[in-house]
Amino acid sequence: MKKKKARELVKERIRKFSPYEVSHIDEGEIKLDAQENPYAFSRELKEEIKGTITDLSFNRYPDPSYRELKNMISAYCGLKSSNILVGNGSDELILALLIASAGEGKTVAAPSPTFSMYRILSELTGSAYREVPLEKDFSLNSGKMLDLKADVTFIAYPNNPTGNCFSEEEIEKIIVASGGLVVLDEAYYEFSGKSFASRIDEYCNLVVLRTFSKAFALAGIRAGYLLCNEDLAHQLRKAQLPYNISALNEEILKVILSKKRDILGTVELLIDSREKMEEKLKKIQGIKVYPSDANFILLKIDRIDDVIKALEKNKIRVRRFSERGLNNYLRVTVGAEKENRKFLRTLEEIL
Amino acid sequence: MKKKKARELVKERIRKFSPYEVSHIDEGEIKLDAQENPYAFSRELKEEIKGTITDLSFNRYPDPSYRELKNMISAYCGLKSSNILVGNGSDELILALLIASAGEGKTVAAPSPTFSMYRILSELTGSAYREVPLEKDFSLNSGKMLDLKADVTFIAYPNNPTGNCFSEEEIEKIIVASGGLVVLDEAYYEFSGKSFASRIDEYCNLVVLRTFSKAFALAGIRAGYLLCNEDLAHQLRKAQLPYNISALNEEILKVILSKKRDILGTVELLIDSREKMEEKLKKIQGIKVYPSDANFILLKIDRIDDVIKALEKNKIRVRRFSERGLNNYLRVTVGAEKENRKFLRTLEEIL
Repeated sequence: MKKKKARELVKERIRKFSPYEVSHIDEGEIKLDAQENPYAFSRELKEEIKGTITDLSFNRYPDPSYRELKNMISAYCGLKSSNILVGNGSDELILALLIASAGEGKTVAAPSPTFSMYRILSELTGSAYREVPLEKDFSLNSGKMLDLKADVTFIAYPNNPTGNCFSEEEIEKIIVASGGLVVLDEAYYEFSGKSFASRIDEYCNLVVLRTFSKAFALAGIRAGYLLCNEDLAHQLRKAQLPYNISALNEEILKVILSKKRDILGTVELLIDSREKMEEKLKKIQGIKVYPSDANFILLKIDRIDDVIKALEKNKIRVRRFSERGLNNYLRVTVGAEKENRKFLRTLEEIL
Repeated sequence: MKKKKARELVKERIRKFSPYEVSHIDEGEIKLDAQENPYAFSRELKEEIKGTITDLSFNRYPDPSYRELKNMISAYCGLKSSNILVGNGSDELILALLIASAGEGKTVAAPSPTFSMYRILSELTGSAYREVPLEKDFSLNSGKMLDLKADVTFIAYPNNPTGNCFSEEEIEKIIVASGGLVVLDEAYYEFSGKSFASRIDEYCNLVVLRTFSKAFALAGIRAGYLLCNEDLAHQLRKAQLPYNISALNEEILKVILSKKRDILGTVELLIDSREKMEEKLKKIQGIKVYPSDANFILLKIDRIDDVIKALEKNKIRVRRFSERGLNNYLRVTVGAEKENRKFLRTLEEIL
């Protein structure tokens, strides 16, 4: 075929689609924009990871059941291996959920604002994506969510970018009354300490998502996991690609889980840093600080453009939002002490 | 929700779906079933891979443009970076292609028999999957393929499991006359030496898939790539997840591409072994040997059940097929010399 234009070979909704945009990182930048854990692995831990390479058969396909990895996740979260799916990042699990239960003619609901990937992947799969604005205090209105009669409902717990955990009662109302899947994204679970994971057998439509990218400091290795009842897990697994996790990534995850106490030690450090930052930010005029259960803080800033300019000048990357109503907001990830100090100093100087 | 059954929460087509089945591998088995390259990486190469871990920021997200990796693939295949998509295995690229251009109401065509993932992922995405049986000599009938007016046509080149490259003329007829995408899966390109990659600018609907799992001996690291014209690449990229390749896998691929001459040395070895195997197999009674352009051989065997039993007894794994008409066939991957000898001896003893 020579005449047709290339773009006509993809569906209309793909042509109209704007992809998730991520800009290039320059050397020397302070990255407080992506909820990464600022603490790099120790030399000892890296040596242990290197050790897994010695016996790894790069030329063989991985064990597609990821048996050993699932056993270790099972020990970590206190559920059975049969309740667990592993994914190449939570994004892959979100896509699998949507392939299994959403798509054309189906509705996906989520509060707004929230993690943008729910909308992006819903649209990618042809699902109708419906948002329910959060209340002024960023609380969730279960009634409005249920009115949408969604096939899949996403709730980030704690929510990103607002940082708060919604009321347990409101979430439970949604789980109980929804006729569809309710997906609680607990990406920041280790920071909030709050989870619905123990209730997956109580509610057959409850799905919990977790990630290794945040508390476990493994954003560079794509890995997340999904928890739900055994029957549902059996069905959802069919919507995943076989061999979705590389053999080496499986080995790395096993090392990380065997050292979880050490690595998760950074969680306390980061919560401590967050609390210090919150205190100091509250003292700066022209900033409203929202309480956070995660490793980031949402700020409302009167002179946001000046602040952004000053941060850019100091090579500090934070997250701004294009959504309506969020123009004056900024989300900052809790970094290492030195990074946080530089961020605070920049704000103090400009405001 | 308590009453509904878990399985009712996923779409009917998912419930009916049988996933890609892969069985567990026991210690000491000879794996001649999955087209893996039998030659493991040298200690030196592994040391170089370990070296990439020293400076790797596990805690940071990868560069989502995979710029350096694409530059190296570009140098390898002689096309521009803007013509390249990288995937977490070719499977992920096949899924992205189907999300972009197939799905409900769309038709996917492929010859039969062929690589089973085309059917599996077509059904997963709700596309209607139509097969055109190959002719008796395993040649492709372009007319019958075009009659299906498919939105996406998959052609494995060389074909799996038959091992042959279809006629260039027949494939070209399909590309020219098809109104949809034509995907040439060149997973075994390094063994066949034949490619359509240089024609992606000539045909706007031509997509070429490649993988690192076979000739590059990297089945354990999930990585493949896709080649097509720039405009189409821009559209297809939207159907992929950001950060689909882990930062470490990117580093490993860069090491492997920098040592491509060494690693691809195994290709000649394997072609040589295949030719030897073909010669010896032809001398055994009750076997028909099909010519192969890949690292595997398709065999038609009169007393297949006896052969399979003997292979199992000797812990040699090969691939049988459940498809109608393929009951008497067996596909064997070319392994290391010692493995091939054991396979041949088993057949010689039983036939």
